[in-house]
Amino acid sequence: MNRTAIVGAGQVGTMLGMALRATRGGGVKARDKAWDGAITLFDVDTTVAQASLARGAGDRIAASLEEILNAGTILLALPVPAILRFLDEHGPRLGPGTFLMDTGSAKEKVVETMRTKVPVGVQAIGGHPLAGTEQAGPWGARPELLRGAPFVLTPVREDQRALSAACALALAVGATPLVLEAGEHDRILALTSHLPHLIALALVRCVDRIQASAPVAGKLTTSGFHSVTRLADSDADMVAGFLWANRREVRGAARAFRGALDELLDALDRRPEGQARPSAGNQDRAV
Amino acid sequence: MNRTAIVGAGQVGTMLGMALRATRGGGVKARDKAWDGAITLFDVDTTVAQASLARGAGDRIAASLEEILNAGTILLALPVPAILRFLDEHGPRLGPGTFLMDTGSAKEKVVETMRTKVPVGVQAIGGHPLAGTEQAGPWGARPELLRGAPFVLTPVREDQRALSAACALALAVGATPLVLEAGEHDRILALTSHLPHLIALALVRCVDRIQASAPVAGKLTTSGFHSVTRLADSDADMVAGFLWANRREVRGAARAFRGALDELLDALDRRPEGQARPSAGNQDRAV
Repeated sequence: MNRTAIVGAGQVGTMLGMALRATRGGGVKARDKAWDGAITLFDVDTTVAQASLARGAGDRIAASLEEILNAGTILLALPVPAILRFLDEHGPRLGPGTFLMDTGSAKEKVVETMRTKVPVGVQAIGGHPLAGTEQAGPWGARPELLRGAPFVLTPVREDQRALSAACALALAVGATPLVLEAGEHDRILALTSHLPHLIALALVRCVDRIQASAPVAGKLTTSGFHSVTRLADSDADMVAGFLWANRREVRGAARAFRGALDELLDALDRRPEGQARPSAGNQDRAV
Repeated sequence: MNRTAIVGAGQVGTMLGMALRATRGGGVKARDKAWDGAITLFDVDTTVAQASLARGAGDRIAASLEEILNAGTILLALPVPAILRFLDEHGPRLGPGTFLMDTGSAKEKVVETMRTKVPVGVQAIGGHPLAGTEQAGPWGARPELLRGAPFVLTPVREDQRALSAACALALAVGATPLVLEAGEHDRILALTSHLPHLIALALVRCVDRIQASAPVAGKLTTSGFHSVTRLADSDADMVAGFLWANRREVRGAARAFRGALDELLDALDRRPEGQARPSAGNQDRAV
């Protein structure tokens, strides 16, 4: 009763597990606090599950698939394609009253699949905590980043209990619930998160290429360059997953971005006046 | 004798002045150490000059243009268009033996102008320390960032004394001299520095636009987004200056970048396998 299963013990699953366990014994008696039982971790990579357990994300590692499917709360902290596969294969078997949330970065496909695969009566909802680092795995989890972070919730059905449980969970981990339609989430995140990943990857690819003819290029990267390309170090499976799942919106965002880049490139022929900084003429007058 | 004039007391001029003054009394007797005399600061904005002086970048503020032009070492730490104007107007008047270096981020136009405007006998060379932050002005100067940073030197003429003085200066401030042809510098920096600035500006522009129809977008920016767009906070005059001066190479870099972005976008239709992370199928086997 009230057991929580976290499926996927990487950075996000570990972050949520640690934050949930930190709420214990806090004296808060939230009506919808469905995760105050044992937290069971699962990851296909047992090393990852062990590391997540070592960081305090859960109470034990799942011994069977049934243990996951029978939990009161199931959190799917997997790359989006793996979330979709889980829903396809196991969604129909979930029992009424189960609270089911994912944490994927692309929501439309997840919510659609929840709607078609998960029986009415399961409290299913899409979730996306906007907190994390580019360091993959349990050791990259930083639960303190949840504090004040937006936790987007994308409803699957008209289901007040699902929404209420999701809000309570988001608040419990320190985040701010933000209810959005899945399509709206995906349109915005395409621009504010998914495209930036693609930009970082494309820029790294260009520098790899210029290094082939000019090896010195590797020494001429600035802190600004590293800032722009930092996201290229993110978990490749996770990134490939949300880019694929949200590819229509990502392509739309890329079109808008290319348009803005072209406007800026077109404006480069105009020699800047630089009024705010000294011209030699100004110096003559000023000195 | 051996007076140094720093023209432009913003982040770069202040950083170099602070680093040079920190070398004093170190007991180093470098033959080419031309900057051990007083350091005179100039900025058309006297508030900026005063702030730079307060941070310890110089010994006094220049009282006249002649004081700058008669210094033994002249460092032009200005946006590129202002460097070009200074060279146009004052280059022909510089006396033999003067060591003249700029710090602009685009070198071909600067080196060309030095070659045509500055008399033979002046030890002129292009310089570009790859160290800095996005915080403009004297208070953004962090001389410790020079430690180990590449300090690109782009020769103007066959001039061993100019090169030797420039190397000594780069080493004195803790940086690593890196001699490059100006065109090669500009081709590489277009990709590793200039284009990233343009990318940051374009992405900010897109998010500003999406906010018009979806104000919530402003709340849905991730740390990754802020990392990619951090450069958009840089000094606008400085950025506009090097983008304009290096616009041919910047456009070339943008073409390469768009090509790489298109390759990545084209690949999005292929559903990722995500072998490294659990699929539900894997879970069945693993649990």
